[in-house]
Amino acid sequence: MTSATRHETSRTLLMDKIRAVLGPGAVLENPAEIQGYCTDARRKFHAPALCVCKPRDTAEVAALVKLLHAHGWPMLPQGGNTSLCGGATPDDRLPVIVSTERLNKLRAVDPFGLTVAADAGCTIAQLQAAAAAEGLLYPVSLGSEGSCQLGGTIATNAGGTAVLRYGTTRANTLGLEVVLPDGRVLDMMRALHKDTAGYDLKQLFIGAEGTLGIVTGAVMRLYPATPAIGMCWLRIAGPAEALELLQLFRRHAGRSLTAFELMNAQQLANVLDHGSHAAPVEGREGWHLMVELADTASADLDTLMVGILEQAFEAGLVLDGSIAQNLTQAETMWAIRHSVTESNARVGVSITSDTAVPVARVPEFIARATDAAMQVHPGILVTVVGHVGDGNIHFIALFAHDLWAALPDRQAVETQVRNAVNDIAIALGGTFSAEHGVGQTMTGLMERYKTGPELDLMRALKRCIDPDGLMNRDRVIGPAA
Amino acid sequence: MTSATRHETSRTLLMDKIRAVLGPGAVLENPAEIQGYCTDARRKFHAPALCVCKPRDTAEVAALVKLLHAHGWPMLPQGGNTSLCGGATPDDRLPVIVSTERLNKLRAVDPFGLTVAADAGCTIAQLQAAAAAEGLLYPVSLGSEGSCQLGGTIATNAGGTAVLRYGTTRANTLGLEVVLPDGRVLDMMRALHKDTAGYDLKQLFIGAEGTLGIVTGAVMRLYPATPAIGMCWLRIAGPAEALELLQLFRRHAGRSLTAFELMNAQQLANVLDHGSHAAPVEGREGWHLMVELADTASADLDTLMVGILEQAFEAGLVLDGSIAQNLTQAETMWAIRHSVTESNARVGVSITSDTAVPVARVPEFIARATDAAMQVHPGILVTVVGHVGDGNIHFIALFAHDLWAALPDRQAVETQVRNAVNDIAIALGGTFSAEHGVGQTMTGLMERYKTGPELDLMRALKRCIDPDGLMNRDRVIGPAA
Repeated sequence: MTSATRHETSRTLLMDKIRAVLGPGAVLENPAEIQGYCTDARRKFHAPALCVCKPRDTAEVAALVKLLHAHGWPMLPQGGNTSLCGGATPDDRLPVIVSTERLNKLRAVDPFGLTVAADAGCTIAQLQAAAAAEGLLYPVSLGSEGSCQLGGTIATNAGGTAVLRYGTTRANTLGLEVVLPDGRVLDMMRALHKDTAGYDLKQLFIGAEGTLGIVTGAVMRLYPATPAIGMCWLRIAGPAEALELLQLFRRHAGRSLTAFELMNAQQLANVLDHGSHAAPVEGREGWHLMVELADTASADLDTLMVGILEQAFEAGLVLDGSIAQNLTQAETMWAIRHSVTESNARVGVSITSDTAVPVARVPEFIARATDAAMQVHPGILVTVVGHVGDGNIHFIALFAHDLWAALPDRQAVETQVRNAVNDIAIALGGTFSAEHGVGQTMTGLMERYKTGPELDLMRALKRCIDPDGLMNRDRVIGPAA
Repeated sequence: MTSATRHETSRTLLMDKIRAVLGPGAVLENPAEIQGYCTDARRKFHAPALCVCKPRDTAEVAALVKLLHAHGWPMLPQGGNTSLCGGATPDDRLPVIVSTERLNKLRAVDPFGLTVAADAGCTIAQLQAAAAAEGLLYPVSLGSEGSCQLGGTIATNAGGTAVLRYGTTRANTLGLEVVLPDGRVLDMMRALHKDTAGYDLKQLFIGAEGTLGIVTGAVMRLYPATPAIGMCWLRIAGPAEALELLQLFRRHAGRSLTAFELMNAQQLANVLDHGSHAAPVEGREGWHLMVELADTASADLDTLMVGILEQAFEAGLVLDGSIAQNLTQAETMWAIRHSVTESNARVGVSITSDTAVPVARVPEFIARATDAAMQVHPGILVTVVGHVGDGNIHFIALFAHDLWAALPDRQAVETQVRNAVNDIAIALGGTFSAEHGVGQTMTGLMERYKTGPELDLMRALKRCIDPDGLMNRDRVIGPAA
């Protein structure tokens, strides 16, 4: 036999074994059928996979991983495939994609412990609905919540719009079940709010983007529902005023402050000019702030909101403002915020940052990033949208489609913009990845910005837990140096 | 030279080098001087140390650790030495104690980012005061807060009475600076609320009890101050009523619910009979609940508290109750809660558990643990105090001093009680260590209750980060099997 034939034979044998482990209907091989699993959400990356496996429970995941481990075959865990960094798309080694989409059972909601235990393949919307049915709240909220899965949000430590109040996905993860790269199951499905019995192993897998194991289940925190909502849209002079308002709201609204979202006039124009949204306030000039308060039913948030805004106007912090009079008006404001990505795509090509800086440095970051981007190309439409209360600013260098098409070296321009913006964030004590993860698009930035001891330790952990390098290889920390 | 002489010579050489690294006055060797560092807070454990080193900054810690690493000499990081599990007391290998007490600088308070950066040797009281000076709150609160240090609370992921609202120390740690066992410094002092740039390495060191490195600094979360306080003491029939009241308070007080502490009549009697505290309500029978609400200044918590208690009385959940009318009365209630350990020591000898179970299982846990303890010895005074909103119950088997002295085999009785109580917690999905850590007293329980894959991975991490086993050896995971 030639080497190629031997390789082909071993692949055929492996496929037979995979089908034997999972049974009929759980393995997709047809290239047309698996096309969607091999391409990322933004259609920037594509690579073939050996097959897509859809195990039905944790035991099947474990059996499959044990088999692949025995064969030394690479594997890629995949949830809702909504990564913005190509983190869930195959590399060039023909991995087996382990889809969690059939791990979709809600295991238990505990209204006393305020916890939900669920399979990793449940969508975030499914968790939100299960909590709401018990008068409770699943706090993580993000644009892709209808399709992204619990396991994926844990693997990427997803953020979103409610981090200000409820923290990141990590902060809301109490228990975890993980299939290790050799197929052993790490059962840490404890629904406990405090546990100091040894190293907290689950933390390793949160934010590891599937490079250390496959998350198959989790116990997440819930909160009392907050049916009382107060919401406003404010036009302001700039980011410095946003910070002053943040302090005012914190002082008077305390922990009912739930969202505090900033955008510049360009971002609002992108949405209003390319959609059917009503303008939330009359003018567009300056900057815009969307603030949400939420609390349990007994709270009078209208009075609170009016009182805070009176002080804000008196202090000269607000140019114009509007308070949502009902839930529909509040939803209209949220719809503008959630249309950002889609609207920007209509306007042109976005080079989007996922930077965070200490909150106090936000105005300086935005000013310096704007200057730096304009120096790369004066035709950039500087578009800013961000979770300003977390210091997480998406600074977007937007090129109109015709301008972008006319650029002689698009890749060079993209790299120049990214490095310029991220250099400033890092210089201000920030990060180049606040909530999107690293995936494949940002491994170069890991090399650029992380210290030697950090990179060394990350690589040592990868070798310790996945010595054969089988799990989502080369993502997050990149190829070993 | 004999082997003993060679050993003596190498020790003398090492001591010379240590003194050269740290300079005069930073190294204590006199057995009388280092006695307090070699004995634990409860005076149960004592072992000698080579010396106690008091570096002044991170660079000195790094230089010292590098030296000890080069000599293969064991070391023990020590903060305020308040461990309840012997976690900060030397083993029998004559380690160098690395005290963080002179690392006591507050580095920066950021009122916009709501963060404080501080050296590991700052006390929790120091952090609380620094936050209060800016109108802010450092949320971690525990009995030893006047002497325990930030680094120690991070190393043990300390809990306390405010976890219900603000989470554990882990949840409040944003940035970390760690000296690794080979003396390299891991600088992760980022004051960011969101960061998904690679593995979150700081999580490894939180709760590792100094077995993986020495925490030298941290960035912690702060919150808006909550000067508005509402507090009540309720006498109730039992733990099941406590859970119903928990739900009532959550529904109506939302996130202003800050403390929810349960104790049984025996615990209250221990305090009232051995101190000068005024009784918070008239009767003692049944169970007692202390509830604190706290919010920003504009909140009217009196009205809220009265409204909730009206519902509670109507629903028959409360036998008797009293609302604190001013701050002094509120402090009186807290004083009872904080006198628990001291009062119990007057009554007798405590075999204290640090169990947590899912909140819904608290009544069943207490009932079964009571039965099990009484079967071990019918003379036990069952004393219960706990953070019931977190499911964290300290079940205390209390032996009057004369009864304890008369026991033929005290060690056997202690082991029987511990195993009986912890077996029940584990069977209910709980933990034997909720907030005190493992230290040296609970490593046997790690073997008893943790699964093989968990223990294997913990040991693999220890080997990965501290291959020579120099850092606080044998604590947490015990000697390698």
